[in-house]
Amino acid sequence: MEVGEALQRVDDLLLSIADSSVPLLRETSQHILGAGGKRIRPRLLLLAYSAAGGTDFETAIPLAAAVEIIHTATLVHDDINDHGTLRRGRETVNSRWGGTFALLTGDYLFTRTYELMAPYSTELNRILARASTALVEGETMQIQAAREGTFDTATYFEIIARKTAALFVAAAELGATAADPPRFWVQALSQYAFNLGIAFQIIDDVLDLVADSAQLGKNTGMDIAQGRGIAVAIQRSRGDAAGVPAPAVEAENDISRQAIQQAILSGHTIEEAVAKGREKATEFATQAVGHLDTLPGSGAVDALRDLARQVVERDH
Amino acid sequence: MEVGEALQRVDDLLLSIADSSVPLLRETSQHILGAGGKRIRPRLLLLAYSAAGGTDFETAIPLAAAVEIIHTATLVHDDINDHGTLRRGRETVNSRWGGTFALLTGDYLFTRTYELMAPYSTELNRILARASTALVEGETMQIQAAREGTFDTATYFEIIARKTAALFVAAAELGATAADPPRFWVQALSQYAFNLGIAFQIIDDVLDLVADSAQLGKNTGMDIAQGRGIAVAIQRSRGDAAGVPAPAVEAENDISRQAIQQAILSGHTIEEAVAKGREKATEFATQAVGHLDTLPGSGAVDALRDLARQVVERDH
Repeated sequence: MEVGEALQRVDDLLLSIADSSVPLLRETSQHILGAGGKRIRPRLLLLAYSAAGGTDFETAIPLAAAVEIIHTATLVHDDINDHGTLRRGRETVNSRWGGTFALLTGDYLFTRTYELMAPYSTELNRILARASTALVEGETMQIQAAREGTFDTATYFEIIARKTAALFVAAAELGATAADPPRFWVQALSQYAFNLGIAFQIIDDVLDLVADSAQLGKNTGMDIAQGRGIAVAIQRSRGDAAGVPAPAVEAENDISRQAIQQAILSGHTIEEAVAKGREKATEFATQAVGHLDTLPGSGAVDALRDLARQVVERDH
Repeated sequence: MEVGEALQRVDDLLLSIADSSVPLLRETSQHILGAGGKRIRPRLLLLAYSAAGGTDFETAIPLAAAVEIIHTATLVHDDINDHGTLRRGRETVNSRWGGTFALLTGDYLFTRTYELMAPYSTELNRILARASTALVEGETMQIQAAREGTFDTATYFEIIARKTAALFVAAAELGATAADPPRFWVQALSQYAFNLGIAFQIIDDVLDLVADSAQLGKNTGMDIAQGRGIAVAIQRSRGDAAGVPAPAVEAENDISRQAIQQAILSGHTIEEAVAKGREKATEFATQAVGHLDTLPGSGAVDALRDLARQVVERDH
């Protein structure tokens, strides 16, 4: 089986996992899981498995589905907190079914992942469990820092390491560990994934500043509106950081939103953040690729190099 | 170690699990986990373990903590959806920290449980994972049936089997299985727990009708206000069910709440629901106890008999 075919099998599995006996949960889960998405985490997992010498994708496919569902669960819950209306080119679960059912849909996706992982070893379960906790902690830190007006660059990196890179690391470690290779191969792939995850999130933040919603399939301009993201971090880490007011508790507060946007725009911070972000993302992607040198050459390793390039060059 | 001492150790473990490196999550988790509560699920788990011949409580203590955290996570999320303000004698996380952080606190408790369970076998993880899914499905069915005005007695039993009895069953099966006894002992304890869980939830609903908030340490009168619970189920299952209007989407809608309350009260349904509820709960508790007869006599089995009596007689 090739990675492409295995990814198709992951998609099939995602839809079958969404098949709750409660029609509403089936509908909401299939709405979000069936909307596609970049599937970068399952791709990373399958490539790490292959790069570490794995050949039987049957073992890796449920693991790849598990990381994608955890990621999707956090998106569904984030969209409640952010009042997002568009996700993966579709209306958000929150926007279509309301906050109560969006909350339960996210919970359902968590518990289904837990069921899916039950047959696997303690080691694999621990990897995914710790990453899941890190995601929740990162999201909490982000909302708190945004509300309290303390979102500077140091905080920014601490947050994206948890809310994004942690699950990239888990994907690589799950895939690699399942292939049972020498320990240092797992470590190399783990380091690759950490740097890739940081690069991915920086570009995500850059796209939130410059891309439009239709292009990304999700709301854009959310970061500045909510007092977070790379532009806010750069502005706050400057001497004139005090000039950026903390946003109000809720993002819909237009006065606070405008105040932030003006403060950022007047400092040309967006252009600076975009340039700085692309530069930093390229650095992290380069570091990521460097960690692959300790692995034996293979098509999968080449594909991981390619993935790092795609992550930096992507426009959606 | 006695069950009482083991329960104290469960409480200590709960607080240490709440010890996130993110101060806000530590505060919210300790607020709810440190508030006590009846701890009936961990007690059931430890007694099932002991009744099935288990002697080393070290194995069972983390399992007992896991069921209590899953239960607590669902309470934190339910309190968002129900707009509850009082829980375990304290302000709800939602009321004190707001919906966003309550959502993340519930998520955090889920992921920490998953971490806690990682060292255990596939069999034990599958038991807890399936119960967790059942809880989310039961809660979803309840909200949907309440909103759509279809909350009759058949639906009521289907819902409480999932939202309450499933975790009681998991507690008994986890405790019993960990002691590795003959298979039919596990089955007997599982059946005991199912019937106990149904009895427990019926009494919970009766107390929601007749007890006051201070006595229960949580908001009361929520069921009728939200178009659910045993009184609504009885009213709807009658010929005059059509007379009960469906509540509005949000519970705060006072007009809808009053309309429901009047419809129920005018039919003397509350007094009837209380009498019928106590009668049904006693039947289920009696059935529960009957399943214990296949187990060898022990202090733990006596305590399980006593637990069934307490569940029916409790006033808080």
